[in-house]
Amino acid sequence: MIRITIWNEHTKITQDVLDMYPGGIHAYLAEVLGVEEDFSVRTAILEEPEHGLSEEVLKETDVLIWWGHNAHHLVSEEVATRVVSHVHRGMGFIALHSAHLAKPFRYLMGTSGNLRWRDNDFERVWTIAPTHPIAAGVPEYFELEEEEMYGEHFDIPTPDELIFMGWFSGGEVFRSGCTWNRGLGKVFYFQPGHETNASFKHPVVQRVIKNAVRWAAPVVRKKTLNSPHAIVSPEAKRLEGKK
Amino acid sequence: MIRITIWNEHTKITQDVLDMYPGGIHAYLAEVLGVEEDFSVRTAILEEPEHGLSEEVLKETDVLIWWGHNAHHLVSEEVATRVVSHVHRGMGFIALHSAHLAKPFRYLMGTSGNLRWRDNDFERVWTIAPTHPIAAGVPEYFELEEEEMYGEHFDIPTPDELIFMGWFSGGEVFRSGCTWNRGLGKVFYFQPGHETNASFKHPVVQRVIKNAVRWAAPVVRKKTLNSPHAIVSPEAKRLEGKK
Amino acid sequence: MIRITIWNEHTKITQDVLDMYPGGIHAYLAEVLGVEEDFSVRTAILEEPEHGLSEEVLKETDVLIWWGHNAHHLVSEEVATRVVSHVHRGMGFIALHSAHLAKPFRYLMGTSGNLRWRDNDFERVWTIAPTHPIAAGVPEYFELEEEEMYGEHFDIPTPDELIFMGWFSGGEVFRSGCTWNRGLGKVFYFQPGHETNASFKHPVVQRVIKNAVRWAAPVVRKKTLNSPHAIVSPEAKRLEGKK
Amino acid sequence: MIRITIWNEHTKITQDVLDMYPGGIHAYLAEVLGVEEDFSVRTAILEEPEHGLSEEVLKETDVLIWWGHNAHHLVSEEVATRVVSHVHRGMGFIALHSAHLAKPFRYLMGTSGNLRWRDNDFERVWTIAPTHPIAAGVPEYFELEEEEMYGEHFDIPTPDELIFMGWFSGGEVFRSGCTWNRGLGKVFYFQPGHETNASFKHPVVQRVIKNAVRWAAPVVRKKTLNSPHAIVSPEAKRLEGKK
Repeated sequence: MIRITIWNEHTKITQDVLDMYPGGIHAYLAEVLGVEEDFSVRTAILEEPEHGLSEEVLKETDVLIWWGHNAHHLVSEEVATRVVSHVHRGMGFIALHSAHLAKPFRYLMGTSGNLRWRDNDFERVWTIAPTHPIAAGVPEYFELEEEEMYGEHFDIPTPDELIFMGWFSGGEVFRSGCTWNRGLGKVFYFQPGHETNASFKHPVVQRVIKNAVRWAAPVVRKKTLNSPHAIVSPEAKRLEGKK
Repeated sequence: MIRITIWNEHTKITQDVLDMYPGGIHAYLAEVLGVEEDFSVRTAILEEPEHGLSEEVLKETDVLIWWGHNAHHLVSEEVATRVVSHVHRGMGFIALHSAHLAKPFRYLMGTSGNLRWRDNDFERVWTIAPTHPIAAGVPEYFELEEEEMYGEHFDIPTPDELIFMGWFSGGEVFRSGCTWNRGLGKVFYFQPGHETNASFKHPVVQRVIKNAVRWAAPVVRKKTLNSPHAIVSPEAKRLEGKK
Repeated sequence: MIRITIWNEHTKITQDVLDMYPGGIHAYLAEVLGVEEDFSVRTAILEEPEHGLSEEVLKETDVLIWWGHNAHHLVSEEVATRVVSHVHRGMGFIALHSAHLAKPFRYLMGTSGNLRWRDNDFERVWTIAPTHPIAAGVPEYFELEEEEMYGEHFDIPTPDELIFMGWFSGGEVFRSGCTWNRGLGKVFYFQPGHETNASFKHPVVQRVIKNAVRWAAPVVRKKTLNSPHAIVSPEAKRLEGKK
Repeated sequence: MIRITIWNEHTKITQDVLDMYPGGIHAYLAEVLGVEEDFSVRTAILEEPEHGLSEEVLKETDVLIWWGHNAHHLVSEEVATRVVSHVHRGMGFIALHSAHLAKPFRYLMGTSGNLRWRDNDFERVWTIAPTHPIAAGVPEYFELEEEEMYGEHFDIPTPDELIFMGWFSGGEVFRSGCTWNRGLGKVFYFQPGHETNASFKHPVVQRVIKNAVRWAAPVVRKKTLNSPHAIVSPEAKRLEGKK
């Protein structure tokens, strides 16, 4: 069972967002992911104590999905660094759409996360790495009738794997699906998901997020990290053993 | 002229360090780099106001070289994030030896920087990327009679380029020379350089640092970063131009 | 069921090799892999017609494991390029030890595969990518009492993933476990496995090879490759659909 | 002085190509590159003995630029592998446009080089790696009024560096500028350059090719490659020296 926490800032939620995703994006995604037999889903939002991401919650989270937009600055440093620390120790992290500027994402990347943007465009997403687990069952390309344009230059580190590239009718391109390893944790950024667009209702988008959850689930999980002082060297041990 | 600032924490400097590097590592490296005609060198230390890394100093720094060990926690968040911001906008950053745990390095990497360590080993450094500018003039391998062992697992993101690998007589290996792009800035980590060992006096180590400075010098430098709102799309502009 | 073909040149097999691996390395590995419930194993050798790698055999092979040493030049161009073509269309390929100079490996890499070598050394293999599927269950390091030294510079393309690094008592280091994507196929190179050393009897080496088989099993498999002429563009289709 | 050889198949040259590039693409590029003070340019074509790429010519070539389309199959294996061997020993190689299927390019990549294509599209090329030497002086994006569409999936190994991405008005995206290291040689693929389109007359395209030549010029050049037998280990040498 993969334990998923879906985080959403959920502040200043407006009617147009509620019209698209009643209950908010987190609630909608929880429903979508909840149907999978190997997924156990909970949600958390900014307004909760510790933004709903206490040490206890993160300990029991295998993959954290993050959506945020207007309230990045309201996320406390403590919670942001706590999330980063759990990723370093093995927790998976999926940053959706406008989370490119979220504190945990930026802190994991080490870059600004900046990009070029414009509302209300048409997007066609192309699969660049057809054999990657995150692309399983994803066609050569899929289309999003209306999505916010996110264009290059996208200020991210070179992805370990570039899985999707976006084409926008306004003329831009974007590295729309990227992975990175950070410590023992895996990070996936996925560009679709503007709050007033229907992208999260698209079956391929849902498929990608489900694939990404299974890909990002921890392989190894540690309680603490450290820089071990190897006082006795492996060669000393070996040569001792030969005596 | 490449403007270099060499930073050293220089706190609790002990006699054995002064015996090896009178004036401290920063002073020694300033002398070594200062002989190059295209280098202009200054130094800065922790005890200075703003750790010697004011906005003015960083604006006039093309490449910042960082050495620190015991005082990582004494570096203010403000200065650490200021350094990171300048790297994002184009400044080069070279992290030496124990700077693997320095705040600016960790913040640029997005990982813990942890590794395995032990004092007083023999190291042989192998060149893995013989055509990289940082390896120019570097032989197949070079030897450091006494150096602190730094061993894997080294908790860093996948390097953009792996240039050197270290062999230690105690039985460990290490990714000893690695590069990453972060924003418009280039980052190089180089493992040799324990404060009581003579590695910085080794001609090949000096050659590598000089090469790295020239490699990390800014190509583009920006005053600010932003996420541009591309209200009018390039396609709209193009099609307008066709009328 | 993953269908594995283990290939060995098996020419000029000498008594010291037979003493170590009666029946040859292919027979030994077939026994080791054959105990896995999800593996179906067959072997093929150089002396068979088409080296045992007919079109029919490769069509029914999910992962091809290759060991060769003295007879690389006796492998026909036809069979070598047939193997490469199957990798491009999805077949996994695992090159063991001296296969660094095998035709299919060199053709897939696009490099010479050259390296530095010496018989009879002690090796310690370090895990660099602890969360990679190929490293599942592999400790921080494992030791091979006697193995041929393979040292840098290893003339390979930058690996997509660097999983293991080798330390040799003679003073060398090596990128001992590396992956690459080639077309729809996955390639893994693993350095241990000299014919007169016991490395293939080491439980961790066996574990790595089993992990690699599962990792390299095809995700997508194609009968042919082509450069599709997309006469009608996706935009034309989309705009047509809007009428 | 960087010694450049520009190769063109130049067979079945048709009037529409001559209308665009009188004398052929090689002659046109020779003129463009010839104005640079540090460039020395010659050309070679398929019809010449050894396709104009004798051992002597390649020995005196620092960077080989390759354009081919209809006659890939007429390039002899001997010349194709000779080019590859020179790249392994340090020669730079720039593959333009339809050279994605040229023998030397495919042999260096180890993949099929396949892609999706369609004539007569509009392309906008975006800069993804603004600090790379090949992007020096290149704007955020540039436009090609008419170019052949090359679209994903492009069957190449993961590029060491992704420098440009193409947007086509028909709805496709493409990794239009990519680099790889192969042995001691550097390889750059650049997608613009259909024979009846004016792309090579575009100042930014010319700038990119000139940048690429300077980037691909050899750092190290070897006469032969080999797998050295390191009979005496570096540790044996070191310990001997200590006696």
